[in-house]
Amino acid sequence: MENKNLVMDYYQLTMAYSYFKQNKQNEIAYFDMFYRKNPDNGGYVISAGLDEVIDYIKNFRFTEEDIECLRKKGDFDEEFLNYLRNLRFTGDVYAIPDGTVVFPNEPLITIKANIIEAQLIETALLLHKNFASLITTKATKIVAAAKGRGVMEFGTRRAHEVDAAVKGAKYAYIGGAIGTACVEAEKEYGIPALGTMAHSYIESFDNEYEAFMSYAKTFPKTSVFLVDSYDTLKSGVPNAIKVAKEYLIPNGYRLKGIRLDSGDLADLSKQARKMLDEAGLEDCKIVASNALDEYLIQELLEKGARIDSFGVGENLITAKSNPVFGGVYKLVSIEKNNKIIPKIKLSNNIDKIINPGYKRVYRFHDKETGYALGDMITLHDETVPVDEFKTEGYHNYYIRELQVPIFKNGKLVYQVPTIEETRKKCQKELETLYPEIKRINNPRKYNVVLSKKLLALKEQLLLKYKEQIIEEDTKNKQKVLGVR
Amino acid sequence: MENKNLVMDYYQLTMAYSYFKQNKQNEIAYFDMFYRKNPDNGGYVISAGLDEVIDYIKNFRFTEEDIECLRKKGDFDEEFLNYLRNLRFTGDVYAIPDGTVVFPNEPLITIKANIIEAQLIETALLLHKNFASLITTKATKIVAAAKGRGVMEFGTRRAHEVDAAVKGAKYAYIGGAIGTACVEAEKEYGIPALGTMAHSYIESFDNEYEAFMSYAKTFPKTSVFLVDSYDTLKSGVPNAIKVAKEYLIPNGYRLKGIRLDSGDLADLSKQARKMLDEAGLEDCKIVASNALDEYLIQELLEKGARIDSFGVGENLITAKSNPVFGGVYKLVSIEKNNKIIPKIKLSNNIDKIINPGYKRVYRFHDKETGYALGDMITLHDETVPVDEFKTEGYHNYYIRELQVPIFKNGKLVYQVPTIEETRKKCQKELETLYPEIKRINNPRKYNVVLSKKLLALKEQLLLKYKEQIIEEDTKNKQKVLGVR
Repeated sequence: MENKNLVMDYYQLTMAYSYFKQNKQNEIAYFDMFYRKNPDNGGYVISAGLDEVIDYIKNFRFTEEDIECLRKKGDFDEEFLNYLRNLRFTGDVYAIPDGTVVFPNEPLITIKANIIEAQLIETALLLHKNFASLITTKATKIVAAAKGRGVMEFGTRRAHEVDAAVKGAKYAYIGGAIGTACVEAEKEYGIPALGTMAHSYIESFDNEYEAFMSYAKTFPKTSVFLVDSYDTLKSGVPNAIKVAKEYLIPNGYRLKGIRLDSGDLADLSKQARKMLDEAGLEDCKIVASNALDEYLIQELLEKGARIDSFGVGENLITAKSNPVFGGVYKLVSIEKNNKIIPKIKLSNNIDKIINPGYKRVYRFHDKETGYALGDMITLHDETVPVDEFKTEGYHNYYIRELQVPIFKNGKLVYQVPTIEETRKKCQKELETLYPEIKRINNPRKYNVVLSKKLLALKEQLLLKYKEQIIEEDTKNKQKVLGVR
Repeated sequence: MENKNLVMDYYQLTMAYSYFKQNKQNEIAYFDMFYRKNPDNGGYVISAGLDEVIDYIKNFRFTEEDIECLRKKGDFDEEFLNYLRNLRFTGDVYAIPDGTVVFPNEPLITIKANIIEAQLIETALLLHKNFASLITTKATKIVAAAKGRGVMEFGTRRAHEVDAAVKGAKYAYIGGAIGTACVEAEKEYGIPALGTMAHSYIESFDNEYEAFMSYAKTFPKTSVFLVDSYDTLKSGVPNAIKVAKEYLIPNGYRLKGIRLDSGDLADLSKQARKMLDEAGLEDCKIVASNALDEYLIQELLEKGARIDSFGVGENLITAKSNPVFGGVYKLVSIEKNNKIIPKIKLSNNIDKIINPGYKRVYRFHDKETGYALGDMITLHDETVPVDEFKTEGYHNYYIRELQVPIFKNGKLVYQVPTIEETRKKCQKELETLYPEIKRINNPRKYNVVLSKKLLALKEQLLLKYKEQIIEEDTKNKQKVLGVR
């Protein structure tokens, strides 16, 4: 693997240096990674990217080349650079496994580590989690809109560079896509690479008929003809039928499919279906592409489009309708003299106030149906306050804890699932969500509550800091601004 | 460099195989890369990413590992796999250099190569050009909105994975940003990495004052304090002033800056400025961040915000307002028996009809002011039709051709500029654009015309294909649909 260790914000290093110089490098810090708002005003998120975070943490180190780059900055002394040279991640990591349905403000990852290690991994951790959760979630919505029809990830050329293309194909697959156009994703992850022809192929021949015939001769078993180069219904579909009748069928093959890539896909698909059926090609599938997403697919199917599978490009690979997943990484506690001191970040914006302390997350499922009823975030050391959940009106349930141990003292203690396993998990997880929570428009809000103890801690800290500000403000007004 | 050769759509390979089996592999094809619409309804685009395309083409090859992946697909024979194993890019490439202002439908890159080579490089070429042009263009707008104040790229954690973070930092810099948070971008490209502290740093101390003091002691020369952890005006700014007075100034240093990261940045900056000035810290800069982009920066400055520099994160690194750059790669000619046969792609959508043929692009500049007056796209072999341009009303101009040779017979004949050179070029190019074309809202449309010869060719081809469709449609109706 290419060394990209320095994919971190520079302030991680200046903070680390300051901790080091102030002799705070052995202080233990607790950080939570969470997000505040479901993308696209949706009802859920699929947590993903833990696999990449694990890889990053396992390989976390500064090479000589990295050290040299930092030395040149001129901000750090040799003692610190030497400290970095020997630095490995030695902390604990708890996380919600990839493919799990999650909700705002739930700690997807909790890090307990010395403050420098915990701080230095922030940027890469967020980078991986944010993109992975964004694309996986988007894919699940597109796949759901397709109602059982295949969705293919076709966005490589519009991805935000190579990593986004290849990893994006992985997340689309985990989210339920059946394959990708990106061959590298098959090489790296074993995800089926799919595709047949572009318009240029057809144009390179003297005419469309000749192009289809030529392709059919090369791929008699798997031909899918792109039929919109000149005119879908007047030229493309008739030529496809002609080649099927003149070459494929006489040689014992069938026409696998046609692809529509422009125009009114609902209408064209219905007319094309009729033409294919009339020609005895009832088994020929219709694939559609052209700037599709969950909203357009839903609309097409509502209009009765006769489409069997969808190629989805830019709108999936960039999550165009909401291309930023706002995962954050916040300090929630500091350990001092073996005591865990909870921390909170204030904000004028009430949504941005974090849940302090070292925490756990539980999910309550209906014992009969398996449906998820709600989640509860508690302090790490409290017993699950089952009674409180009963007041929410749930009775016949079983409880599962969402975070699992990933690293203990820097050692990986988690069996990373395969992509296929995560893909299956994602589907199973979605089945536990009530349909109202999964719908694209105005989904019902899933119930996530804080335990009474956690809520009390939060309120107490808020109060404390507000009092402190008033006090300091008074002092400052007297002391500082008075002096000039 | 890690091998990512298979970052290509699978259909590139199925098409290549079909060309190979049909013995078309030595046919010469001409492809244009261009785009159809300026992002964000803007007036221009900065062409970028040619550096990455050159790298890709230079290193274009299939390794044994790639071949093995393709063999497993089961779609190709050994003769073809062997052909791929020995394949290098041997064609010609013409392109508009990075940092140049460009407009819709202008060929940013023209490829002349055997049809398999030309086809196989499509995906990576588009992937690189699309992201690069997207981010560079976005950066120029944000930088313009800041009116000379520094813009720092702070988006690593929200980038679409590692490549987007590191290369995005490069394009932001080319577009005029003064630096990035991403340390890897400094290591790889020498772009200044910047940053000081996050909220977690402050929270990790018992109070804000202690945190600032601690940081000041570590970085007395470069301290920029983040002042919004508790309350910007009641706590953050007063504590910053206190530390400046109690520690920095007595030790011969000055407070470099404060950073505002939440709240009403216009109002807070004015009040903070007043407090700093009153405390004798007139030289302390105010940095602002928090989901900024060109629109918000423009608004802040219109409101009289006292901000000296801007940290811009997610909205730049993902080009959030328009995260897809729709560059396309279209066949424009095929060479047969040493004759170049122009090709066109029809579409029901008039905007999507391409300009056929092997072409050149010229820009006309006002001789006095240097301002760009308009562009003309011509056929490759016609002399610049200066007269036609005169009818557009321009007289006192000089002409420059925009595309330059990059590869000749697979050999690089172009001196790739450094990042600094491209950054300067970008700025110089923007200076040749009338301000009306550069404004964010409702920019004036820049004049791009086709030469009469090119226009005539386009019309003639359109007519020919339309006639062909009508003729085939009639034939098909008689022959195919009649048979059942």
